[in-house]
Amino acid sequence: MKISVGQLNYHIGNFKRNKELICDSIARAKSDGADLVIFSELCIPGYPPLDLLDRLDFVEKCNQTVLEIARECNGIAAIVGSPTMNNSKEGKKLYNSALMLSEGKVIFTANKALLPTYDIFDEYRYFEPEKRFSIFDFKGIRIALTICEDLWDEQPFDNEFEKTRLYTISPMEELSRHYPDLVINISASPFAYTKIKTKNDIFISKARKYGIPIITANQTGANTELIFDGASKIVTSKGKIFRCMPFFEESVETFNLGNIFSGNIPIQDPEPETIALIHKALITGIRDYFRKTNFTRAIIGLSGGIDSAVSLCLASEALGNKNVKALLLPSRYSSENSVSDSIELAKTLGVDFEVISIEKPFKALEELLEHAFSGLEPDVTEENIQARIRALILMAFSNKFGYILLNTSNKSEAAVGYGTLYGDMAGGLSIIGDVYKTDVIKLARFINRNSKIIPEDIIVKPPSAELRPNQLDTDSLPEYKILDSILYQYIELQRPADRIEIDDSYKNLVPKVIRMINSNEYKRYQAPPALRISSKAFGDGRKMPLAAIY
Amino acid sequence: MKISVGQLNYHIGNFKRNKELICDSIARAKSDGADLVIFSELCIPGYPPLDLLDRLDFVEKCNQTVLEIARECNGIAAIVGSPTMNNSKEGKKLYNSALMLSEGKVIFTANKALLPTYDIFDEYRYFEPEKRFSIFDFKGIRIALTICEDLWDEQPFDNEFEKTRLYTISPMEELSRHYPDLVINISASPFAYTKIKTKNDIFISKARKYGIPIITANQTGANTELIFDGASKIVTSKGKIFRCMPFFEESVETFNLGNIFSGNIPIQDPEPETIALIHKALITGIRDYFRKTNFTRAIIGLSGGIDSAVSLCLASEALGNKNVKALLLPSRYSSENSVSDSIELAKTLGVDFEVISIEKPFKALEELLEHAFSGLEPDVTEENIQARIRALILMAFSNKFGYILLNTSNKSEAAVGYGTLYGDMAGGLSIIGDVYKTDVIKLARFINRNSKIIPEDIIVKPPSAELRPNQLDTDSLPEYKILDSILYQYIELQRPADRIEIDDSYKNLVPKVIRMINSNEYKRYQAPPALRISSKAFGDGRKMPLAAIY
Repeated sequence: MKISVGQLNYHIGNFKRNKELICDSIARAKSDGADLVIFSELCIPGYPPLDLLDRLDFVEKCNQTVLEIARECNGIAAIVGSPTMNNSKEGKKLYNSALMLSEGKVIFTANKALLPTYDIFDEYRYFEPEKRFSIFDFKGIRIALTICEDLWDEQPFDNEFEKTRLYTISPMEELSRHYPDLVINISASPFAYTKIKTKNDIFISKARKYGIPIITANQTGANTELIFDGASKIVTSKGKIFRCMPFFEESVETFNLGNIFSGNIPIQDPEPETIALIHKALITGIRDYFRKTNFTRAIIGLSGGIDSAVSLCLASEALGNKNVKALLLPSRYSSENSVSDSIELAKTLGVDFEVISIEKPFKALEELLEHAFSGLEPDVTEENIQARIRALILMAFSNKFGYILLNTSNKSEAAVGYGTLYGDMAGGLSIIGDVYKTDVIKLARFINRNSKIIPEDIIVKPPSAELRPNQLDTDSLPEYKILDSILYQYIELQRPADRIEIDDSYKNLVPKVIRMINSNEYKRYQAPPALRISSKAFGDGRKMPLAAIY
Repeated sequence: MKISVGQLNYHIGNFKRNKELICDSIARAKSDGADLVIFSELCIPGYPPLDLLDRLDFVEKCNQTVLEIARECNGIAAIVGSPTMNNSKEGKKLYNSALMLSEGKVIFTANKALLPTYDIFDEYRYFEPEKRFSIFDFKGIRIALTICEDLWDEQPFDNEFEKTRLYTISPMEELSRHYPDLVINISASPFAYTKIKTKNDIFISKARKYGIPIITANQTGANTELIFDGASKIVTSKGKIFRCMPFFEESVETFNLGNIFSGNIPIQDPEPETIALIHKALITGIRDYFRKTNFTRAIIGLSGGIDSAVSLCLASEALGNKNVKALLLPSRYSSENSVSDSIELAKTLGVDFEVISIEKPFKALEELLEHAFSGLEPDVTEENIQARIRALILMAFSNKFGYILLNTSNKSEAAVGYGTLYGDMAGGLSIIGDVYKTDVIKLARFINRNSKIIPEDIIVKPPSAELRPNQLDTDSLPEYKILDSILYQYIELQRPADRIEIDDSYKNLVPKVIRMINSNEYKRYQAPPALRISSKAFGDGRKMPLAAIY
């Protein structure tokens, strides 16, 4: 028997497009001689559909699309993911289902039992968990059909307070009682650079424990902040990786089940470096946000610092250099190098740029406020005015020409509130908002791996907001290596202050940094969506109260 | 036996304050001769603690505070709500618990079984649902101790697609097998003007069905966008309301259980009007946001329109007129009346105000962008520049003097994207962001109920953004009565386009309005938190995808 895996990039709510993608892949699988082709979790609506699932008309469109696809399954079966109605009088109105389609019909349905409801996941918001388990005999192969988290009943969490067994049932334990020959797992699993190994380990441990091979189909591409890695895996009954499909790329591959059962492992592609994966993830995230919101062109404010430089490189690669515009918006405090380095970068990338000094509107506003602020020293107010004039100009270009403004703040800044709301925190999409400053530097080095694209001066000079004379980030913040270590332990590992491991000489910084994180929640509440590459990004996956003490 | 209900206003994470509040009320109840005093759901951390529950140190502080309070329970028992550890190896790490405290000890624990995970609720994110039920004999009275949603296994939803039975178990059905004499329900139930009757009906139907009286303790006060109505109820075994405690006020009341069992109903307070409750809710929301973020002073941009006028009145009442500052920021397109009406209002309220024309910075920016925009007609870009200059000035005052900028956009505008991101959409808290325009007018009339506070001209003149010559809202939007009807049916009732009921002559507006709602999700993503008064507000309770088609 031959089985194909369709690892595709779905567009939420775009039923026509998703159906085309799926039907093209069914045809492709059929021409490969496949008996069955597998698509990913909730591929019909695209994942995550969020509160569109609260709408009857949306769910009806899902059902209709499933039936249309079923009619294309002639001489081949397909497994797709879609919400289905819970026809019981009780419980949530929907199931998160895997549907096996053949000859115009749904011939088998498996509903998801374990509904992730943590971090960015909120599946119990919509779905009733399945409590009964059965397997399906497809041409003599007994298939255990599972959905993503169903295999994750045991998992390590970065948060050290979480249990490894988050659920009180184990779907595989239940299914194993029916002696399956093969496990199929369809998923919509977003990328996190800390989870690459975990994802392999989960499948390896299950295959080994039950002595059954596993075929997985994950979605790829990005939907707003979530970037799905693809990397669909085939694991043998001995727990060996038979195949890992490419990261962040659409792909349809066909496998001979006999080869998988034999346990002979083909030669593997080399494992990509983590920084290369982050780089590719971010490019995927930018590209898909534009494609899926029907925009083509971006605008970026180029400050002369490493954050906007890296962001520009990523945007230029994602969208094409002709679709990106850079504005240099120097103030009286900008260093000469900031402008010349930025121009050099824009020229190297072949990106159109313009230099517009903000001095005149800054002066007009200073004069306008002179009376109201008379007798008061300049402070963060005047710094913020500059940042906000820049945002105003960037947004004017966005409005006039139809650019999306890309935000270039990094995760370290976002964490400690080192940024101006409605100023440098503005933008439609934050590119590196989930990348710590020390990783931004790694990204810069990676971008320069083959040739010098980002001027060395931009990478090595001490970070500065350049909003007052001789300002340096280290005036108000610890050096980034120390800061990022504290941030990671507090945000990702969720360690209490007294369990944060740091050199004794920096211990006194810990409470100060934590206070900065907590007191800037109000700013992050209004931040743009940030492409997520970690297991705990700011945004929907981290919900903190504002009017609170902590 | 006497039982007291402590309806209090908790501050999330402020364990010291919450403990003081609770201990003071225990003392008060004891002096009333009460045997038992009841506090609300998760009163120890304050509700909703959100992802603070993911932190071990936070949960440890809850446990510690519970034990400290238990030591104050001498000669009286108290029921408090707090997270407790799930000591099983499996499942979520916490339970949402009701703890009965007496003489330094926890003498009984009931865990929440039904975990609301819809709209603004996400309790399955943190808590394991309880599956076992038992009752507690307290001085001969068999008490069924339940937590909020535990009594809501049957409930009507505004979304017509939702099932009325959202859960597969009924805690009261389970508990009734143990023949309880009394149901106690502790809750943290936020206000929604459409749910006032529902809340009564839920308790009435349960009391009647099981023939047992119910005593409830709800929290009051606001935590960021959620405003808790208090209105704790006592219902007799015949399903009569014995007492409804005040809305939006702290109160400790003591009841003789014999009187409740007797079924003789005391004279009731008259039911408040809905618009009066909305008014009081918003004032509570503003006041608590400031108190709980440790701010005292607000700034508001006063446009001459009804939205900012109503917002100023609410802020002035919530914070005191001396703590509110109004800025009038006219442009070349502002009508004379807008300035004079605004001045009249500020003077009537005794609110300090300043008039600052935005002409100069607007001109400076027009000139700066003249070259880049040459040959292009003025459009929404120039309108947005004006709105953004205003936000920049308001934020400069906020930064310089420590005001929180209050946002004055209404729900109708927010729905259709009639507002400028980083412009009039800016602010730390949105006061009327969950109030439809037609209800803003009702609020204005309510504010003027005893004396003319808001000038009549502000209430009756046709709404305009005044960002270009002779602009009216109706240039781009349907009249608000029609618009709001469509919005309510689409947003609150979640009706598909073809089931929206509207006069035939407006049918063609429906798809246009829905398109506006859906295509402006990206703006609302970055909007400030908005005080919630409906059952479906924009913000955390309505999660829609951005890079999507719908």
